[in-house]
Amino acid sequence: MTTILDGRATTAVVMEEVAAEVEKLAGKGIVPGLALVLTGDDKYSARYVKLKKKRAEKIGMYAEFHHFEETTDKELLAFIEKLNADPKIHGIMVQLPLAKGLDELLAVDAILPEKDVDGLSPNTLGKVLMGEDCYLPAGIEAIMELLKRYDISPEGKHWLVAGGTNFLSKPLAAYIMNMKSRVTQAGAKCPHIPTLAKTADVICTEMFKKHAITADMVKDGVIIIDNGNNYEGKKVFGDVDPAVYEKASAYTPVPGGTGPMLIAMLLRNTVKAATKIA
Amino acid sequence: MTTILDGRATTAVVMEEVAAEVEKLAGKGIVPGLALVLTGDDKYSARYVKLKKKRAEKIGMYAEFHHFEETTDKELLAFIEKLNADPKIHGIMVQLPLAKGLDELLAVDAILPEKDVDGLSPNTLGKVLMGEDCYLPAGIEAIMELLKRYDISPEGKHWLVAGGTNFLSKPLAAYIMNMKSRVTQAGAKCPHIPTLAKTADVICTEMFKKHAITADMVKDGVIIIDNGNNYEGKKVFGDVDPAVYEKASAYTPVPGGTGPMLIAMLLRNTVKAATKIA
Repeated sequence: MTTILDGRATTAVVMEEVAAEVEKLAGKGIVPGLALVLTGDDKYSARYVKLKKKRAEKIGMYAEFHHFEETTDKELLAFIEKLNADPKIHGIMVQLPLAKGLDELLAVDAILPEKDVDGLSPNTLGKVLMGEDCYLPAGIEAIMELLKRYDISPEGKHWLVAGGTNFLSKPLAAYIMNMKSRVTQAGAKCPHIPTLAKTADVICTEMFKKHAITADMVKDGVIIIDNGNNYEGKKVFGDVDPAVYEKASAYTPVPGGTGPMLIAMLLRNTVKAATKIA
Repeated sequence: MTTILDGRATTAVVMEEVAAEVEKLAGKGIVPGLALVLTGDDKYSARYVKLKKKRAEKIGMYAEFHHFEETTDKELLAFIEKLNADPKIHGIMVQLPLAKGLDELLAVDAILPEKDVDGLSPNTLGKVLMGEDCYLPAGIEAIMELLKRYDISPEGKHWLVAGGTNFLSKPLAAYIMNMKSRVTQAGAKCPHIPTLAKTADVICTEMFKKHAITADMVKDGVIIIDNGNNYEGKKVFGDVDPAVYEKASAYTPVPGGTGPMLIAMLLRNTVKAATKIA
């Protein structure tokens, strides 16, 4: 039997839980507040950030959307500092990548660790590596939550993390280093991925390439976490060929796997941050 | 031909270079200053920290040794803040582990990133993971420097990092994630290490176990980085059985491999920090 790690169904359950937390906090007079910061003029990003705001508001959270079509490092830093000091705001999310010319490290480094609910700052990523308590990047939360909901332990396994971004693959590999597991990380374009995939118990992809992982590369019973998001027109494809599913013991479909979970994880972290202050 | 990665000889060369940098800075009226902070009553640690001070002073650096046999988190934090603000001090090293009862994360998180010359803080470790510029932990610097001096590229290889501390193995694996290499990390006691070792091009051990890696576990031509420091009386043994050396293309001996490099790397980072201010 192959388990489909259904991100949509899981998101619905998680959002109900988060909404219940928000209601509880409301009883104490606290409204979890999230500040969403977008730079540049990418329309897809703008739509995505607006969706985050809408989802937050729908469950009774407070959300602010700040869009800087043009800005400077100095202005952006000053704005983040203002959010750091704002008691209405429990979580700050700066949409990455930033608009061209802006210094990403400077921006994420300015976010107060207590408000870094999207796990973007070096301070947070260092804590992920150290195995210390922090707000995990939404992508990691999504994977761990999906496995938990389907009673699959992330431990005692050999993970292959195929990808190298600061949002997902590198922090995920760092996170796994603190488990009773083994982890192999390789860049999205590493020519050795077929060999590495063959012995992996879990394959987590962030390869930006349609069907890069094929059935001949994996072993029977593999768990597939596919973070691919490869568009061809309006159709989206994963990094993993669906033929792999037949050999897998569990997999995240694309679409409908980890993707839908991301906003829920961000909102849950924000509610946690508000709870800590309560 | 097997290359012996000679830490003592390399340290001597590096220390000459660092001394020359210190002299250059002296010409500009700058003396690189290092604050060494020790807590508790471990005699071995006290001796080691005093050695760091002596080595620094020998090449014309300024060094302070602060020993708190008994202290509190509050007192230690206040002291680190004082060092952060002290213009004589360019680098701060807090000897770990801290004395029992003290909060290690609190202490290392207090060190200003610009003065975190031993790569201890979450901010620094996050930057290591992100591939951003920072002062690398001395253990990583030592390994990369040894490879460089012997013209061995760390890239294009499959690394096995066998160990899981915050000082060495986890940051090292994080560092390698930013190279054109693959890296597998497993805990020091992971039962799968023999299997993982078999396909590794480089094996870096921090296993706290005498001769844990044996010749049958490795492939021909492997590069061995042995961070073992296992004492039996006054004799010290590596994590790697010397019989492995015959199959290796290069290896760090124990003693005389990475160990002697550590102080030199700390001093070099401190001088770099002073240079940035110059």
